[in-house]
Amino acid sequence: MTKIRTAMIGGGIGGFIGEIHRMAMRLDDRYELVAGALSSDETRAMESASALGIRGYETWQGLLEKEKENVDCIVIVTPNDSHAEIATSAIEAGYHVVLDKPMTRTLEEAVALANTASTSDGVFAMTYTYTGYPMVRLMRERILAGDIGEVRTVSVDYRQGWLAEPIEREGQKQAAWRTDPQKSGAGALGDIGCHAEQLARFTTGLAIEQVRGDVHSIVQGRKVDDHASVQLKLETGVVGDLVCSQVCTGERNHVSVRVWGDKGSLAWSHEACDALKFTAPDGTETISFCETNRAPSGHPAGFVEAFGNLYRDCADKIQGKKVDVIDAQEGLASMKFIDAVLRSQESQSWCEV
Amino acid sequence: MTKIRTAMIGGGIGGFIGEIHRMAMRLDDRYELVAGALSSDETRAMESASALGIRGYETWQGLLEKEKENVDCIVIVTPNDSHAEIATSAIEAGYHVVLDKPMTRTLEEAVALANTASTSDGVFAMTYTYTGYPMVRLMRERILAGDIGEVRTVSVDYRQGWLAEPIEREGQKQAAWRTDPQKSGAGALGDIGCHAEQLARFTTGLAIEQVRGDVHSIVQGRKVDDHASVQLKLETGVVGDLVCSQVCTGERNHVSVRVWGDKGSLAWSHEACDALKFTAPDGTETISFCETNRAPSGHPAGFVEAFGNLYRDCADKIQGKKVDVIDAQEGLASMKFIDAVLRSQESQSWCEV
Amino acid sequence: MTKIRTAMIGGGIGGFIGEIHRMAMRLDDRYELVAGALSSDETRAMESASALGIRGYETWQGLLEKEKENVDCIVIVTPNDSHAEIATSAIEAGYHVVLDKPMTRTLEEAVALANTASTSDGVFAMTYTYTGYPMVRLMRERILAGDIGEVRTVSVDYRQGWLAEPIEREGQKQAAWRTDPQKSGAGALGDIGCHAEQLARFTTGLAIEQVRGDVHSIVQGRKVDDHASVQLKLETGVVGDLVCSQVCTGERNHVSVRVWGDKGSLAWSHEACDALKFTAPDGTETISFCETNRAPSGHPAGFVEAFGNLYRDCADKIQGKKVDVIDAQEGLASMKFIDAVLRSQESQSWCEV
Amino acid sequence: MTKIRTAMIGGGIGGFIGEIHRMAMRLDDRYELVAGALSSDETRAMESASALGIRGYETWQGLLEKEKENVDCIVIVTPNDSHAEIATSAIEAGYHVVLDKPMTRTLEEAVALANTASTSDGVFAMTYTYTGYPMVRLMRERILAGDIGEVRTVSVDYRQGWLAEPIEREGQKQAAWRTDPQKSGAGALGDIGCHAEQLARFTTGLAIEQVRGDVHSIVQGRKVDDHASVQLKLETGVVGDLVCSQVCTGERNHVSVRVWGDKGSLAWSHEACDALKFTAPDGTETISFCETNRAPSGHPAGFVEAFGNLYRDCADKIQGKKVDVIDAQEGLASMKFIDAVLRSQESQSWCEV
Repeated sequence: MTKIRTAMIGGGIGGFIGEIHRMAMRLDDRYELVAGALSSDETRAMESASALGIRGYETWQGLLEKEKENVDCIVIVTPNDSHAEIATSAIEAGYHVVLDKPMTRTLEEAVALANTASTSDGVFAMTYTYTGYPMVRLMRERILAGDIGEVRTVSVDYRQGWLAEPIEREGQKQAAWRTDPQKSGAGALGDIGCHAEQLARFTTGLAIEQVRGDVHSIVQGRKVDDHASVQLKLETGVVGDLVCSQVCTGERNHVSVRVWGDKGSLAWSHEACDALKFTAPDGTETISFCETNRAPSGHPAGFVEAFGNLYRDCADKIQGKKVDVIDAQEGLASMKFIDAVLRSQESQSWCEV
Repeated sequence: MTKIRTAMIGGGIGGFIGEIHRMAMRLDDRYELVAGALSSDETRAMESASALGIRGYETWQGLLEKEKENVDCIVIVTPNDSHAEIATSAIEAGYHVVLDKPMTRTLEEAVALANTASTSDGVFAMTYTYTGYPMVRLMRERILAGDIGEVRTVSVDYRQGWLAEPIEREGQKQAAWRTDPQKSGAGALGDIGCHAEQLARFTTGLAIEQVRGDVHSIVQGRKVDDHASVQLKLETGVVGDLVCSQVCTGERNHVSVRVWGDKGSLAWSHEACDALKFTAPDGTETISFCETNRAPSGHPAGFVEAFGNLYRDCADKIQGKKVDVIDAQEGLASMKFIDAVLRSQESQSWCEV
Repeated sequence: MTKIRTAMIGGGIGGFIGEIHRMAMRLDDRYELVAGALSSDETRAMESASALGIRGYETWQGLLEKEKENVDCIVIVTPNDSHAEIATSAIEAGYHVVLDKPMTRTLEEAVALANTASTSDGVFAMTYTYTGYPMVRLMRERILAGDIGEVRTVSVDYRQGWLAEPIEREGQKQAAWRTDPQKSGAGALGDIGCHAEQLARFTTGLAIEQVRGDVHSIVQGRKVDDHASVQLKLETGVVGDLVCSQVCTGERNHVSVRVWGDKGSLAWSHEACDALKFTAPDGTETISFCETNRAPSGHPAGFVEAFGNLYRDCADKIQGKKVDVIDAQEGLASMKFIDAVLRSQESQSWCEV
Repeated sequence: MTKIRTAMIGGGIGGFIGEIHRMAMRLDDRYELVAGALSSDETRAMESASALGIRGYETWQGLLEKEKENVDCIVIVTPNDSHAEIATSAIEAGYHVVLDKPMTRTLEEAVALANTASTSDGVFAMTYTYTGYPMVRLMRERILAGDIGEVRTVSVDYRQGWLAEPIEREGQKQAAWRTDPQKSGAGALGDIGCHAEQLARFTTGLAIEQVRGDVHSIVQGRKVDDHASVQLKLETGVVGDLVCSQVCTGERNHVSVRVWGDKGSLAWSHEACDALKFTAPDGTETISFCETNRAPSGHPAGFVEAFGNLYRDCADKIQGKKVDVIDAQEGLASMKFIDAVLRSQESQSWCEV
């Protein structure tokens, strides 16, 4: 099948999210990354492109202009404040666009961008990670199919702890732009609150109509919100509660969404991403497991990543690095074990391995 | 960085393990798959190569002979009975070799292959998946570092249920060769017992010296073992128990390894692959979480795969398939939510979204 | 040791909470239940007393008047609307008083009762169940000792599903008085919200200063609240969120309390009542287990209750009921097993049991 | 209802198991403990009886002789070596007998005792704790009812860590007699192995026909077994594996039993004693929760014990000890909270508590 020729804006080498996007693109081998304007720092942009072996550009404008014939799709992973301008230009230039969340820095920009997108024939897609989990999709399907009856209440809890200290003042780059309202817009609400609220909408299929937020900057001196508790009113009289926080010390990346209807409830959490829990009115819990991971049923999410680690080691070793791989002596030891067990079964006694 | 030019033997399109290996190779983008003899069925071999866009061969012999100048590494994912011959030839032809487990069909073949491997300068590596999990590696490191004191006992439990019925007689291909002793050698012992016993050795750093197995073919008429309980004696007087079974109805892929020393214990299970549990003598449990996944700390294993699902959908949509992606209206809804929460904070009242 | 002579008001045979209080009193054998006015229905009151083998009274007034010399402590387990009057009278009559939650039906009654209690030399105690869990107490101790640093935010979640349907209209007695504002005052807020808010205060040692509640009667026509989401402001600037609901279909009795400070967090949930989870800033979780249950360390809560089930069966059998107990043949089977295992160790072979 | 007049042999004040038995007897209030020969040390025996307010005896022989008219049931909680003689005498004297496990020190004694018991009209019952858990009983019922089809394999794992060090040499009394073969017979096999093997039989309804044990004294110099791995053959061709160990450092009291049939599996573990997990052939797990605890559905095992803790505190306070109870100010605070939430709902704004 033809691969989709892709260019990336933002995502220079050494950052975090760009490499995640690139790995995700490679996983099913349907994209070919051919060009990039990978940093607003021109030197870093060119060096990153070189490291990736793709055509490099010093500016995203240059890329959009020059690659029209050779690129189908633009992936935008810059800080929020440039989303609107870059995405608008890419759409208008006729590219398909994949844009990291949140959509833009301000609501005004988002309205305009949505208008632009609506006039384009190209695909415009955003990477709300949690909708990529098969069990979140199944949760939505089952709720829409009526498995829990009429929805009554929804609860979403998204807590991180990585901004529990004012690390933005200590030069942590990820923290710096995320806590700078000029770059990010909102703080926790924009960075993770959008995931939380989208999970409420996505799983229930209901729009949020009204909110009442209790919003805080718990770390003193922080310029954006880092903690918010929000009461929700959704369509059809459904009520909800949502908390998003980046100052819950020690939380790695806790995301959970629970929805109760009059015939039962469904719950999902990031910690057990392959499981979907249904609770019947009598309290019995039925846990379904993902059957649509890349590895067949029974192999949990992450299996491919573990396999990838083995191949990383092999690559290291092949390229001369001193690392351990499972070698022939290891393989032989297993064969000796199997043989000894079978002999011990025959002799009904202990056998030397 | 230069990519490793790779060819695959076995792993035709439509099978399972070949695609897992290919995804794993792509994940870090250090391999370039350039050729393949992907099936013992010549037609399927050529069609599979064509579908992957690589140079196809009708036989592995042909591949090994013709690709010496253009391929660095051979990945072998055929059924067990051909491992010995192919791997030996590949090593002797000077390739690096990556071989799926178990090493060979018989112990005799394994001894010979290990000898061959020991004479080669090339890398010989086997894909024992579980050693790819960072927390299994950490478990080994901590045990070798003395964190649980002197090891006393180890318990490994690997149970699947997919062979609970005689599906090999109903044409299930994976089951057919795995339960044919001419192709597979041992049954459950070879297919998953080798993972289990290797986990015992890998985590403790101790060889298994003696075994006493109670081996069964629980499904009537099955020609290989499908259930085994094995008592273990390891070096330094350590005792152990190991169960591997493919007839434990309903088990997806339950793998757990627990090791007790005189200063505490460590335990890992596949279901919670990002966690490593240490239990102190007083019973307090300390659970460490993986910090070396591809996504940064807090994002569990499988995050990249979920992200990959989003990109798969985008690819589908870009290529004309009718699928849902998170579109501009969704992105806009989030921005409206964030804006409404911030307005509600200002007004200290409910706000329309 | 001298036992505390006790009388109970409310708690007639066949109800739920009276028997729980009586079992709890017997557990450590420090109370002697001697009298009761066990129901507002005089016949049932006398029959219940007779069944318990204690002195019965048709009215609580009669009991309070007549038992002054022979009773030390009054336990009150009536519906909320009579708490104030009975408790006040009991205090004024010089008894120690144990009162089930919530304190009264209305705030006015509570203020008056607290005044009365403050003038008495007797003990006045309320049965907030969750403070009886050793790990909730440990959570408080550790937070007050500074183990999580300065408290920042608290989250309490108390959800039940038993009122998901309007069972009060179908004659369910527990539901009927709890949803009758004349008897109960508030609904979910009074029945379980008081546990939730008390857990927030108890574990942090901080008073709640301000609240903003979103309160609903989700079941149509219900006269009291059955679902509330409450934003909290506690002393020292701590913020919190609390949900209590009795209409979350399928929830048995989910109670969790989590507190985050700037040095870590502590969390407890009813489902795992013997565990207390501390999360360090780096995400490592340390789980302590209860060491102060009645059965020694390692035996979880409920061990005594399981043991009690065995004694219940024995009592049934001794009194002629046909039930199974573990009999001599069972005991003998175990001895044969032990003997056979030891023989098999000597002979290093299978042994008949 | 008439109470069963009971005497206890063994179980002096300060020990562990006697008090557990006494609490269990009190829980449902169907036993009246009236006499005891509570220790083989005559002084301690008389002091313990005095502390409990019951008739004391210096020897169990004296008790059995003198209490024939006044006692119905003898509870025996002495070390194993005296079980046979005392139980035989009690049966022959016409008492009902409740005997702690294991039945006797040796198989020979057990055979004789079982014969004696079979000739008596009285009840003879043993306290195998785990059969007191409602979900273990449900597991048996469901397996016997065919819920998992034909049973294929069973796995029992019972691990403790309290004997990981040779504490019997440091005067730990519980350890001393349990590791003295003259008093206990077998070690871990007798103390906990009998629970494990009985769970295998009880849940499946199948007898164990053959065993092959790998039995160890892992702590050097210990005179009894402290670790055993046992392969099992049960009736109808069922195979099993069983591990019991008292030297698994850090294990509190881990007990799990899993049974697989050809239509699914059922699993129970002590850590989650209220849950019973069924796994369907497709891997879906259905978890049922206990509905027959003393507290109604939703209240987990241990609820009564937590309630008992509150009453213990009240008793302490009433008897002059300085302890905290939930007092009137606490109750009032809850009422203020409820009132403030309801006011905030009316005013749709923050309210002072």
